[in-house]
Amino acid sequence: MSFRASVLTLHPEMFPGPLGVSLAGKALERGDFALETVQIRDFGVGRHRMVDDTPSGGGAGMVMRADVLAAAVDSASPAGDPRPRLLMSPRGKPLTQARVRELAAGVGAVIVCGRFEGVDERVIEARGLVEVSIGDYILSGGEVAAMVLLDAVVRLLPGVMGNARSGETESFETGLLEHPHYTRPAEWEGRTIPDVLTSGDHGAVERWRQAEAQRITHARRPDLLSD
Amino acid sequence: MSFRASVLTLHPEMFPGPLGVSLAGKALERGDFALETVQIRDFGVGRHRMVDDTPSGGGAGMVMRADVLAAAVDSASPAGDPRPRLLMSPRGKPLTQARVRELAAGVGAVIVCGRFEGVDERVIEARGLVEVSIGDYILSGGEVAAMVLLDAVVRLLPGVMGNARSGETESFETGLLEHPHYTRPAEWEGRTIPDVLTSGDHGAVERWRQAEAQRITHARRPDLLSD
Repeated sequence: MSFRASVLTLHPEMFPGPLGVSLAGKALERGDFALETVQIRDFGVGRHRMVDDTPSGGGAGMVMRADVLAAAVDSASPAGDPRPRLLMSPRGKPLTQARVRELAAGVGAVIVCGRFEGVDERVIEARGLVEVSIGDYILSGGEVAAMVLLDAVVRLLPGVMGNARSGETESFETGLLEHPHYTRPAEWEGRTIPDVLTSGDHGAVERWRQAEAQRITHARRPDLLSD
Repeated sequence: MSFRASVLTLHPEMFPGPLGVSLAGKALERGDFALETVQIRDFGVGRHRMVDDTPSGGGAGMVMRADVLAAAVDSASPAGDPRPRLLMSPRGKPLTQARVRELAAGVGAVIVCGRFEGVDERVIEARGLVEVSIGDYILSGGEVAAMVLLDAVVRLLPGVMGNARSGETESFETGLLEHPHYTRPAEWEGRTIPDVLTSGDHGAVERWRQAEAQRITHARRPDLLSD
């Protein structure tokens, strides 16, 4: 059974978007994963299908209603659905490559894209939504965050990367940032490729790459080394 | 002069994509920002417009050629272009809301979307590309990362959020994650809204929100407090 993603959004027209192109697009065509969108507004209340209301306690912005979002979640993910229910939110646990691997090993994900100021806390609790953040910045909505999460997951699904390497030596998979890359031409604008890479000495190449990965991680992301 | 983004990519058909919808889409229509794409392949070498080659020193994957990418960069961003040149890359400095604000206050950005294994290090150095990471996970390419960066920037551009609040009390802007939100109905599935929020006591509401923001940040992201 392939990975099944259900995306709950007020902008289903954004999907598949970039996920319909290139690596993810081919995987989608092949059926390596399925992508369904659910229009939250279809569950809105009243003649105007209202999905949000003003925040209790006052303040700017609008808050997505618990009853509306719960109805959308229940429709896409009835009780017993084994898929995790995620809410893209800057308040969430930061997404990591380990979490991406875990999701890719599962059967799918239900992904709620917030808009407005936020989502009524009660639906987060009542439907067990797990808040996931893709980084420490604010987006206009959860849609591009959902695309990021799905792009990261999809490339790890069986068959998607084909005979490309499976990613074990990539940034974060080793706990380090990646070493620099070089390719032809051997000289460009007076800049050459480090000699060791053209030496043919496989062991020396590996040692150089490991040392460079250490050096770059130390310089740029000492936080990754201290974990 | 409005914010001008040039995106260098092998998949220009992905753009504007989600950036053409909703808040960003309206901003694009109004001309609050301009979005140009440059097809890197147009600068490829030979009859097949080759853009990549095998990595020096061996290994899986392909590396984007320095000469090809430099030609694309030079076309989009000639010497003297005041815009920062960014390369979306997991090896980069993590994007923060402070960096987003800084970019939004500027005249634009040239954004290179990597694909394949990586980009020849020499073009990064020679063209002063600044590597930017949106998070500690691996994507199939830089395109969705560029969308995230632009979505975050665009909502802060003058005129884009209209009379919505300007974002000062959002997650990260205060150094804290946001407090929970509630809206009507007052009771839902037996769950009520915290009394303080309906008390009409503005000071008490503010104190509760501040305490909740502290509590949630402490529980979920103690790293934000220790900075």
